[in-house]
Amino acid sequence: MERHFDQELQALKDDLLGMGGRVEAIIVKSVEGLKRRDLRLAEEVIADDMAIDRLEIEIDERCVSLLARRQPMAVDLRFITSALKIVNDLERVGDHAVNIAGSTKRLVEWPPLKPLVDIPRMAELAAGMLRESLDAFVRGDAATARRLVRRDDEVDNLNRQVFRELVSYMIEDTTTITRAMELILVARNLERVADLATNVAEEVVFIAEARIIKHHAEERIGGDFGRS
Amino acid sequence: MERHFDQELQALKDDLLGMGGRVEAIIVKSVEGLKRRDLRLAEEVIADDMAIDRLEIEIDERCVSLLARRQPMAVDLRFITSALKIVNDLERVGDHAVNIAGSTKRLVEWPPLKPLVDIPRMAELAAGMLRESLDAFVRGDAATARRLVRRDDEVDNLNRQVFRELVSYMIEDTTTITRAMELILVARNLERVADLATNVAEEVVFIAEARIIKHHAEERIGGDFGRS
Repeated sequence: MERHFDQELQALKDDLLGMGGRVEAIIVKSVEGLKRRDLRLAEEVIADDMAIDRLEIEIDERCVSLLARRQPMAVDLRFITSALKIVNDLERVGDHAVNIAGSTKRLVEWPPLKPLVDIPRMAELAAGMLRESLDAFVRGDAATARRLVRRDDEVDNLNRQVFRELVSYMIEDTTTITRAMELILVARNLERVADLATNVAEEVVFIAEARIIKHHAEERIGGDFGRS
Repeated sequence: MERHFDQELQALKDDLLGMGGRVEAIIVKSVEGLKRRDLRLAEEVIADDMAIDRLEIEIDERCVSLLARRQPMAVDLRFITSALKIVNDLERVGDHAVNIAGSTKRLVEWPPLKPLVDIPRMAELAAGMLRESLDAFVRGDAATARRLVRRDDEVDNLNRQVFRELVSYMIEDTTTITRAMELILVARNLERVADLATNVAEEVVFIAEARIIKHHAEERIGGDFGRS
């Protein structure tokens, strides 16, 4: 039974939001595992990532199939080509969660270095950015997307703060070096997740307004893909 | 004047190879700047990255325009949707080079920590992987691409080796911590570049053989996008 193009597009949006929910959850879980020193959670992250990898392939196929069968134009075409890039970004979030789970596994071998405050805060911010950027993508909400691009700075600042604090631990007491290094790498993984959410937000502005904020280029792009 | 589809596809391939050349050069330059402690090279990297950002936007537009006007099928469709993802990956390589240039700027404030051997080797390997993966993409050479996916391990091993060596510097002498941290981050940036080259190689296998090695899924994918 042939479905309408609009229904197919809606199914694609639902798939993207579904994948987004998984990706948000995996980040929260990876940092929860780190905070609670819970190896079971760390193992779950690795299994969850494999499910995310499969979703990437499925959504990718759906996009290419839509392009082949429906030959969409203008905004719909842009939506689908952006979706192709976004699933790629979402899949990478899963990889960062796996890296964090790896750090958890190594860190549980040591006594805790310090109570974790900034890192869970970074995870919360990054996961929120992911959710909001995907919602904005699906709704074509460029105003929200623009705000998200700016919010990335908050995560960058936390990352720098975590870095400075942990380096001072290392200098004061060399027995903390291995643990502090792991936590610095965890923070960098979270900073990358926020960057990936920012990429998604940039795509939203791009397709919603056919204007590139990516790379801070502010020129309007003309041609076939202007505002529809 | 209307050009033939094949000519347009060839122009896209030329653009991709051109961007690939720039991206390979920026990685080599960023590590050359680090090795020679040359701030001029570090500044050039930042300018080169902006040119790469513009190339991404241009090639992206070319891909979307081809999809809109030509409505390609099967292997050509796959090639173009893969190109969309690959330019995204190539653009990120530029960001990693900028990170390395940032480390160079901070490191020149200090006496050299050690002669750099493994890091330039990682840069050489990663740059070579980028070049070969793009060549394989343009030629549709899945055999070369498969070999490249395996070669990523070599870079990962060097990254681990650099990490271990630098952590031992930090433990022995805390005055090395800041510098050792910078070099660890440089190595991680290069490891990510090799990962991005691996992504490109995985796309090649995907489109050339319509078989997914990504995520180690080995099932054949049927449907519209099988071997043509």
